[in-house]
Amino acid sequence: MTGEILCVGTELLLGDIINTNAAFLARELAALGIGVYHQTVVGDNGGRLKEAVALALSRCDLLVMTGGLGPTYDDITKETAAEALGQKLVWNQEAYDRMAAYFDCTGRVMSENNRKQATAPEGAVVFQNENGTAPGIAMESSGKIVVLLPGPPSEMEPMFYGQVRPYLEGKTGQTFFSRTVHLFGIGESAAEEKLRDLMEASLNPTVAPYAKTGEVLLRVTAAAPDKSQAQALLTPMIREIRQRLGQYVYGVDVGTLQKAAVLALVERGLTVSTAESCTGGGVAKRITEVPGSSAALKAGICTYTNEMKTALLGVDTNTLEVHGAVSAQTALEMAQGARRRTGAQIGVSVTGVAGPQPSEGKPVGLVYVGISSPWWEDVKELHLARGSGNERERVRHLAENHALYAVLQAALKVKKPPDAP
Amino acid sequence: MTGEILCVGTELLLGDIINTNAAFLARELAALGIGVYHQTVVGDNGGRLKEAVALALSRCDLLVMTGGLGPTYDDITKETAAEALGQKLVWNQEAYDRMAAYFDCTGRVMSENNRKQATAPEGAVVFQNENGTAPGIAMESSGKIVVLLPGPPSEMEPMFYGQVRPYLEGKTGQTFFSRTVHLFGIGESAAEEKLRDLMEASLNPTVAPYAKTGEVLLRVTAAAPDKSQAQALLTPMIREIRQRLGQYVYGVDVGTLQKAAVLALVERGLTVSTAESCTGGGVAKRITEVPGSSAALKAGICTYTNEMKTALLGVDTNTLEVHGAVSAQTALEMAQGARRRTGAQIGVSVTGVAGPQPSEGKPVGLVYVGISSPWWEDVKELHLARGSGNERERVRHLAENHALYAVLQAALKVKKPPDAP
Repeated sequence: MTGEILCVGTELLLGDIINTNAAFLARELAALGIGVYHQTVVGDNGGRLKEAVALALSRCDLLVMTGGLGPTYDDITKETAAEALGQKLVWNQEAYDRMAAYFDCTGRVMSENNRKQATAPEGAVVFQNENGTAPGIAMESSGKIVVLLPGPPSEMEPMFYGQVRPYLEGKTGQTFFSRTVHLFGIGESAAEEKLRDLMEASLNPTVAPYAKTGEVLLRVTAAAPDKSQAQALLTPMIREIRQRLGQYVYGVDVGTLQKAAVLALVERGLTVSTAESCTGGGVAKRITEVPGSSAALKAGICTYTNEMKTALLGVDTNTLEVHGAVSAQTALEMAQGARRRTGAQIGVSVTGVAGPQPSEGKPVGLVYVGISSPWWEDVKELHLARGSGNERERVRHLAENHALYAVLQAALKVKKPPDAP
Repeated sequence: MTGEILCVGTELLLGDIINTNAAFLARELAALGIGVYHQTVVGDNGGRLKEAVALALSRCDLLVMTGGLGPTYDDITKETAAEALGQKLVWNQEAYDRMAAYFDCTGRVMSENNRKQATAPEGAVVFQNENGTAPGIAMESSGKIVVLLPGPPSEMEPMFYGQVRPYLEGKTGQTFFSRTVHLFGIGESAAEEKLRDLMEASLNPTVAPYAKTGEVLLRVTAAAPDKSQAQALLTPMIREIRQRLGQYVYGVDVGTLQKAAVLALVERGLTVSTAESCTGGGVAKRITEVPGSSAALKAGICTYTNEMKTALLGVDTNTLEVHGAVSAQTALEMAQGARRRTGAQIGVSVTGVAGPQPSEGKPVGLVYVGISSPWWEDVKELHLARGSGNERERVRHLAENHALYAVLQAALKVKKPPDAP
């Protein structure tokens, strides 16, 4: 089955918003085995929208459209798509009732305009919108499927996961199950090198790498009639990946480094405190992104000056004088200080040169990450500059990654209690 | 002049990366007065690329393409575009010399493949690439212009600003100058309401609002033959906007809230320390995003537990017991503590319920921002929940905004010394 993505919205054409919907849908359709060869954006303009729909339908089996389902007169996606498939819009009482309930519960008043959102082509599948007013729609005619989804990602994505994906699985006759292997400390191409034969030879499950700043994810996807048969395909592949990349695998389906770190801490009843210089609070911020992190984070102390490193973390003035603020010795004393001053079991520190200017005669990108706990102490020297782009934010983000990874490693050195949550 | 954006890359079609180039180019072309009605994405596939180029050229005057200019055999954008315009590729010595120098300076070895990047259609304009290997190209034929740009934003964006925009200004016969007015504390639609007549009636300069999370920007753009004539158009319009929205305008061309705050502090020789609970270090992190912020930030203290609020910030245990951690009283004592414990002139604090769960029987979104300085103390009670989407990150980001705005306000209450940097 070939698919095509058509996003509708003048705000996209003007560049006021970035088209994350196209990337989301592209990834999800690829994971369903649906080949997508074109993505298009047009504005809320009747003639051009009609042309774009006709062109797309001339070259694909499944057209997925987002946007233009709102209540105003310039929202014409549904009308245009229905016309292209020769279908009539009729009243949909369930969609209306849902919308009325949504307005009730958010305390807003439904306007006359909104009634137009409660129509759908006869016989169409209606995807109810749990997070907004415009329902999604799937309509079929002469072997072509058109799926219409609301534009806001906060409405579109849950609708896709909850209702559209199962619908499309029914159409492709296959159900897909994915697991994500999280890697740290290895680049995308090095990971590919070690897995190339698996990636090329294995069709079910498939293995596909995705790069995030400083991290690599491997998505392993199996097509199978049900979950247990999918697991039977996924488990040996994940075992094989672990065997080849063992030291770099920090989790499966763990979401993010900070989630993995917080989970490992909470499971073991451990707490951490951070001592940050060049990351300026970024490590603490990422830990506290995770709901429930209040059980894991004691405190975060960001000391940008030498004076504060001594006052708040107890770093020896002699250490700062002899080795400088950006040094392994200072990093270690910061981590120790964070632990000692707050009573956390683990202290983690970051000190380095984020740029744009060198500091203490040390180059941009030189970063030390320290970790201190009763059972493990260590400092890592990192060289994170690449020589182009927004170096400062990149260096800071990568330094945060290393600090979070150090916290995870420190936690994992403690045996998980048998009654862990 | 009508334009069209065609982005080439299989990684876009698979959703591995988000198409930020399309949004960037859309915004920039709109600012140049070039109307864009279609954006398209295709992969590195000869047939489909050729069709896409032909279709685009049938409906626009200016086709801007990104991606597919690399050295490998599947990079075919240049060849396809040249063929569509009936042009031949010839050797470009300057492009080759630049590329050789780039390889030299980054310590890498040029491969035979790279030679293909040093060709261009005869008579084409070549945009040298300061941040990578693939040069950009502009070619013209029978009234149509095709501009080819490299895919990586770190190469494309500087090339656009430095070389492509002036080239396009030469084509449109107009030069555009923009200034950005930054607003805080007013929503996009309320701002529009107050400016509607200006936005509708004024064609030169134009006024266009852009919404960021919790902030609104107004871009005022003048078309004029030179900068001083543009200023003559821009200045009265900005004065008018200030008059209408005065209290909400926090700066013109200041970049971000954190940049405005750091600049105001540095100009006055002031320092700030942060005391954060629910934002978990996010305020300090945003302050330290700004190069040079080390002169403005003393320390950031993130206290997630009551125990730490008392130990590190000196919040009275009685205050925490009687009023709770999420209260105006605690916010004020946190801000005072941050100031007192670090010797900064300004202390700013955030305490609130970021969610997903209520806390102390207080609802998600309730946040207090405190500010303390010898000349001003204040606490703001905020209700930041909206009831949908990723509430936690939204609440945290908006709370950070309010804290940064409070720091800016505190700094602005101090007279700028005449010898300010």
